[in-house]
Amino acid sequence: MFVLVNTKTYPCDQVAVAEAAAAVEPTTDARLAVAPQPTAIDAVADTGVETWAQHVDPIEPGSNTGSILAESVADAGATGTLLNHSEHRIRLDQLDEGLSASDRADLETIVCANTPEQAAAAAALGPDAVAIEPPALIGTGTPVSQADPEIVESAVTAVDGVDESVAVLCGAGISTGQDVVAARELGAEGVLLASGVAKADDPAAALESLVDPL
Amino acid sequence: MFVLVNTKTYPCDQVAVAEAAAAVEPTTDARLAVAPQPTAIDAVADTGVETWAQHVDPIEPGSNTGSILAESVADAGATGTLLNHSEHRIRLDQLDEGLSASDRADLETIVCANTPEQAAAAAALGPDAVAIEPPALIGTGTPVSQADPEIVESAVTAVDGVDESVAVLCGAGISTGQDVVAARELGAEGVLLASGVAKADDPAAALESLVDPL
Amino acid sequence: MFVLVNTKTYPCDQVAVAEAAAAVEPTTDARLAVAPQPTAIDAVADTGVETWAQHVDPIEPGSNTGSILAESVADAGATGTLLNHSEHRIRLDQLDEGLSASDRADLETIVCANTPEQAAAAAALGPDAVAIEPPALIGTGTPVSQADPEIVESAVTAVDGVDESVAVLCGAGISTGQDVVAARELGAEGVLLASGVAKADDPAAALESLVDPL
Amino acid sequence: MFVLVNTKTYPCDQVAVAEAAAAVEPTTDARLAVAPQPTAIDAVADTGVETWAQHVDPIEPGSNTGSILAESVADAGATGTLLNHSEHRIRLDQLDEGLSASDRADLETIVCANTPEQAAAAAALGPDAVAIEPPALIGTGTPVSQADPEIVESAVTAVDGVDESVAVLCGAGISTGQDVVAARELGAEGVLLASGVAKADDPAAALESLVDPL
Repeated sequence: MFVLVNTKTYPCDQVAVAEAAAAVEPTTDARLAVAPQPTAIDAVADTGVETWAQHVDPIEPGSNTGSILAESVADAGATGTLLNHSEHRIRLDQLDEGLSASDRADLETIVCANTPEQAAAAAALGPDAVAIEPPALIGTGTPVSQADPEIVESAVTAVDGVDESVAVLCGAGISTGQDVVAARELGAEGVLLASGVAKADDPAAALESLVDPL
Repeated sequence: MFVLVNTKTYPCDQVAVAEAAAAVEPTTDARLAVAPQPTAIDAVADTGVETWAQHVDPIEPGSNTGSILAESVADAGATGTLLNHSEHRIRLDQLDEGLSASDRADLETIVCANTPEQAAAAAALGPDAVAIEPPALIGTGTPVSQADPEIVESAVTAVDGVDESVAVLCGAGISTGQDVVAARELGAEGVLLASGVAKADDPAAALESLVDPL
Repeated sequence: MFVLVNTKTYPCDQVAVAEAAAAVEPTTDARLAVAPQPTAIDAVADTGVETWAQHVDPIEPGSNTGSILAESVADAGATGTLLNHSEHRIRLDQLDEGLSASDRADLETIVCANTPEQAAAAAALGPDAVAIEPPALIGTGTPVSQADPEIVESAVTAVDGVDESVAVLCGAGISTGQDVVAARELGAEGVLLASGVAKADDPAAALESLVDPL
Repeated sequence: MFVLVNTKTYPCDQVAVAEAAAAVEPTTDARLAVAPQPTAIDAVADTGVETWAQHVDPIEPGSNTGSILAESVADAGATGTLLNHSEHRIRLDQLDEGLSASDRADLETIVCANTPEQAAAAAALGPDAVAIEPPALIGTGTPVSQADPEIVESAVTAVDGVDESVAVLCGAGISTGQDVVAARELGAEGVLLASGVAKADDPAAALESLVDPL
């Protein structure tokens, strides 16, 4: 089970979250990773935890200002990237180009999607995984696997119908180990987390509790 | 074979183009339609020709200013709409919502795409058709069916792999009847045209010549 | 006093609103206009009321699909356009180009702005007028002239500091004749209205009541 | 004279450029700074050179994914930021909010603009400086001060008319010390550079030659 902690632009200590994840990782079969802001990728990678970008732009090296370049996040230590997060939606053609940019920089990719249909569409572009995150549940504390379990199963079915090699993750509202188990039982191969860990008083304890039942 | 003439924001007489299409339509087995700017939809529909919108926004009736509402283009006489044209790319989630808006207003839908992968992605969202238009060929006068015939066949294969009920059209560079025949032989069920007809001195003659070999 | 009724994408009868405005116009010293959706500009203009576009895109005639062309809204009968409405914000460079496009098509221009600073910025681009519309008040029924009268006076001062020839209008929450009078007393030369008239059971009565105290 | 080197997403060694600037800085009266990608801000700041961001997003700390947060670039060592670069244009309201975000994080600000009118508009929002960069000249090697000197003087006049405390810089095509002197004589208090230094075989020599006549 893949557990990716997105620290967003929270006013949290991203390196402390990374250190917590690095400390918990050896104690569990789950694969843990942290997705910090671009300014903190190198410091997070230095903790030894698997490090992801939150986004890369659909560009090539060259004359672009203020953009996030796939090669640069890889150089800083990231080995994967989210794309099309609900807080950073992009155009269909840019998603395709963002996936190409990620491939060029050897970044693993997870494309976020609102609905099973969008998840299937994303799968047709050849990412490593898609993550289904109904926007209505983001930040609610109600896990998608409980509020709307059918959407996870529908996403798995829809994605498999397009490309069986694309994994399905789920996000939105996951905060306990039971939520993670429920997601796995619905067919998800991983989960996206954010505030539950990144804003916890004790991120290591929060992560331990999350991966404990796995 | 579906032949859709996009008059873009050309400084052409959109109603004259529509009248030409209305005059040619009864003489051919091809299905002809014209996609004018929103301000001209009612006047184009009044000619009797099948009328399409060039775009509708992913919105519902309500507090939106400066947007193109699916219900309003339908009320003005449009029976279909393009979405995600290469000159009006939209986000994946907005494309999904634009298709929902179009369904709500009983508009037929064609989603444009650059590549077979994007065409397959679009097909996963359930439009009536996708149109493959390599941007490099748009406005060149070199038809996609001649410059890059594999892309049309690849798009047909990719779209069929996702949803066989979604038709594939092709665009970019089509200007002669031979181009249309070539597109059909590659598996396309229709073509998108623009300058070849809309900017012709005699749009009716241009259209007659296009549909003559069908 | 200029009173512009924006019918947005409300599910209202835009032509009926226009007819109401056309009927009330001769009875008042106020200047009345209606800004319908692009598909209804010609029908609204046919009522004889002064007609505005809700938006035009920063483009020239040519290869643009799904855009709203200044020349086309002018041809359909519009004599002015809103730009940068809070429901259709645009980039600074596009605002400059949208004003150029409007000038080219002889459209009068009102640029919307959230704050006095943005109003001053807009004034530097040379529109005919700016409209100050605090987003927090839009659609609330609480008029800006009552909830936050200083913002209107600040906008007038800020705009005058940049270009005295640019008029200041105000919007957001205006629904009664008293609101219009209050706006005038704060230095506004006009008001933007939307739901108060467009969604009224009797738009003519709503407009009469609005302009009665002027 | 302020000389800001933008390393864009060039495939250059951003730290080597920063080291070159750090080495040249003590030898000149000019103020030198480097604007790297977000992933390299901390490493660039570690060289001791004044460090700028290329862009910050108009957001507050919180639930944003894939964005560039003003506080985070400041924490990483940046003391200023470009906004609205020609390769990263933003909406007028977002520019206003990006300036507020920068103020909140104590970042100095330079807003880029195409034209004197846009420069004046930007000045109305209260940045520390605006930079006039006619897009037609970017990357050409022809300096704006030579190709179109009036535009620099017009920008100075337009900006002074709005707010005399806002400095004017110029960019686009500057590559020699003579270009920098010419810009100063036209009223510019600084210059933006990119490829001339960032892509030079010997960035220190390029910078020395640039600041030598100052």
